[in-house]
Amino acid sequence: MRGVVMHAPGDIRVEKREDPRIQLPTDAIIRLSASCICGSDLWPYRGVEAVKGPSPMGHEYVGVVQEVGSEVKNIKPGQFVIGSFFASDNTCVICRAGYQSSCIHRELVGGLGAQAEYLRVPLADGTLVTTPDTPSDDLIPSFLAASDVLGTGWFGAVAAEVGPGKTVAVVGDGAVGLLAVLAAKQLGAERIIAMSRHEPRQKLAAHYGATHIVTERGDEGVARIKELTDGLGAHSVIEAVGTQESMMQSIRSTRPGGHVGYVGVAHDVRLPGEELFFSHVHLHGGPAPVRRFLPELIALIWNRQIDPGKVFDLTLPLDQAAEGYQAMDERRAIKVLLNP
Amino acid sequence: MRGVVMHAPGDIRVEKREDPRIQLPTDAIIRLSASCICGSDLWPYRGVEAVKGPSPMGHEYVGVVQEVGSEVKNIKPGQFVIGSFFASDNTCVICRAGYQSSCIHRELVGGLGAQAEYLRVPLADGTLVTTPDTPSDDLIPSFLAASDVLGTGWFGAVAAEVGPGKTVAVVGDGAVGLLAVLAAKQLGAERIIAMSRHEPRQKLAAHYGATHIVTERGDEGVARIKELTDGLGAHSVIEAVGTQESMMQSIRSTRPGGHVGYVGVAHDVRLPGEELFFSHVHLHGGPAPVRRFLPELIALIWNRQIDPGKVFDLTLPLDQAAEGYQAMDERRAIKVLLNP
Repeated sequence: MRGVVMHAPGDIRVEKREDPRIQLPTDAIIRLSASCICGSDLWPYRGVEAVKGPSPMGHEYVGVVQEVGSEVKNIKPGQFVIGSFFASDNTCVICRAGYQSSCIHRELVGGLGAQAEYLRVPLADGTLVTTPDTPSDDLIPSFLAASDVLGTGWFGAVAAEVGPGKTVAVVGDGAVGLLAVLAAKQLGAERIIAMSRHEPRQKLAAHYGATHIVTERGDEGVARIKELTDGLGAHSVIEAVGTQESMMQSIRSTRPGGHVGYVGVAHDVRLPGEELFFSHVHLHGGPAPVRRFLPELIALIWNRQIDPGKVFDLTLPLDQAAEGYQAMDERRAIKVLLNP
Repeated sequence: MRGVVMHAPGDIRVEKREDPRIQLPTDAIIRLSASCICGSDLWPYRGVEAVKGPSPMGHEYVGVVQEVGSEVKNIKPGQFVIGSFFASDNTCVICRAGYQSSCIHRELVGGLGAQAEYLRVPLADGTLVTTPDTPSDDLIPSFLAASDVLGTGWFGAVAAEVGPGKTVAVVGDGAVGLLAVLAAKQLGAERIIAMSRHEPRQKLAAHYGATHIVTERGDEGVARIKELTDGLGAHSVIEAVGTQESMMQSIRSTRPGGHVGYVGVAHDVRLPGEELFFSHVHLHGGPAPVRRFLPELIALIWNRQIDPGKVFDLTLPLDQAAEGYQAMDERRAIKVLLNP
């Protein structure tokens, strides 16, 4: 089959890879209906994370089950399924507490390479969730968004304790940040402040429910949030970048007793203990347990109550993946969908 | 009046200070029934925090109201009252959310010097809480503990989401840590692991409800907590020290999805973002909003359901405060009560 392989920072190739096969009786093989490029794929692309030899890329996936291992009970060939970036058994005590991305048997799907034609999914019964029926083509981008960026933005909102009557700020205007706006709206936030200086992203944020746009960043961004909240800060801030600046901006934009939900994969972040201590904020986040939210997200998409697929503003055939990476790196595209 | 003044690290003197007077119509003056030395007083005593000239010491206090300002409505002369280290109006939106120690009008009582005969308490209506009647002398140490160390340990337990069925670990065996054990017991924890290598403190921890004692620290301490929790870590960890080591020990001892409540005043702490991200813990803490808990704590003490005053294992007259500091610094005493 064909699949995307990163050979070095900036060096993306679509090449022949071995067809995945059932390796364990809990595996499933799916034929991918669509895959996509993630903001987190840009970290190694930009050389911020090391690339250790040729690496199959991609960890967001939807598709049709081709084959299942002998112990797979819930998932059947022919079903349309969605999974997320960590395979999980969904039965251990950590999964049952809602933290499937820290499942004691978790496996990173990233290394398996979902930017391809086929994918082996470990722990299929725990990891994959079916749609009510095979979806029409126009719903596929939204289901693909549920695989990571929607689930991650949603977790950010849940971790930030978004709810009715609250003022929510979202730091980061990538796909995760934009879908955190959507999540905040769904979870009943009263005011949603999107922090973005890019017009197409501002528009999408407004479409998803942002009531205010703040273009300033850093200390000035914090000052604007304070101005909008009687000098106190937001009740809930969702961090969707992963840098020192964005973390500090998030903590400083939150009122005492408020909540920061952080889902940007942290890079070179060192949180100053004294400031955190006196900030009085709650801090929670990490790799989103997307699996926890998938049943609810699938229902919302199936019933066309939300349209997270709009974050895909560029669709390319798999063979043009390199152009997709470049477009995202240069911020010409919010998120790129790849058709196998 | 006489009061404790720190002139430099290690230099504690009891000297004549000016009698406090009503300065604002919201002030009250109280005659102190008892005061005490706090673990946090040891930071400047040891030179870890700078001492900027002669500083009146002490921020824990119980006593009898002598005089109130013209706008004070709830508190009357003759009443026995307890306050905490931040004066707060108890009416602003932050106070009403339960974060009185971040009150928008807060004032630090520390600078006013409660290790003395009299104390001016700002925002008396918001800050002070009365007991049902004048307590008998034997209850005074417990009420004094409620002023800070009990309220702080309690907040640590609440911030760590301690509750029925949970396994709780407490890092730090000072008065706050020991009273966090008491709080965890009251809040219904199933197992309470006290981390201590000092026998008298271990005994008091057991008296307060610790079901397990772990003497190891750092990585070995984490390993012991994991052994006791099926390799997962505790549900709730209360951090009551404030160093890099104790914070990391706490985070690493907590299971994914679990809660760290940190109440040790942070000193030179830098939390690594990547590790925090993948730990999946909830982090909350800061200066305890003791005022939130005072009504409940006063009732528990008045009804003799808890005995937090046992943390005072050395009682001295105010004039011997220097000996009290030395005893705490050398860990010969857990906590020192000063009789004016």
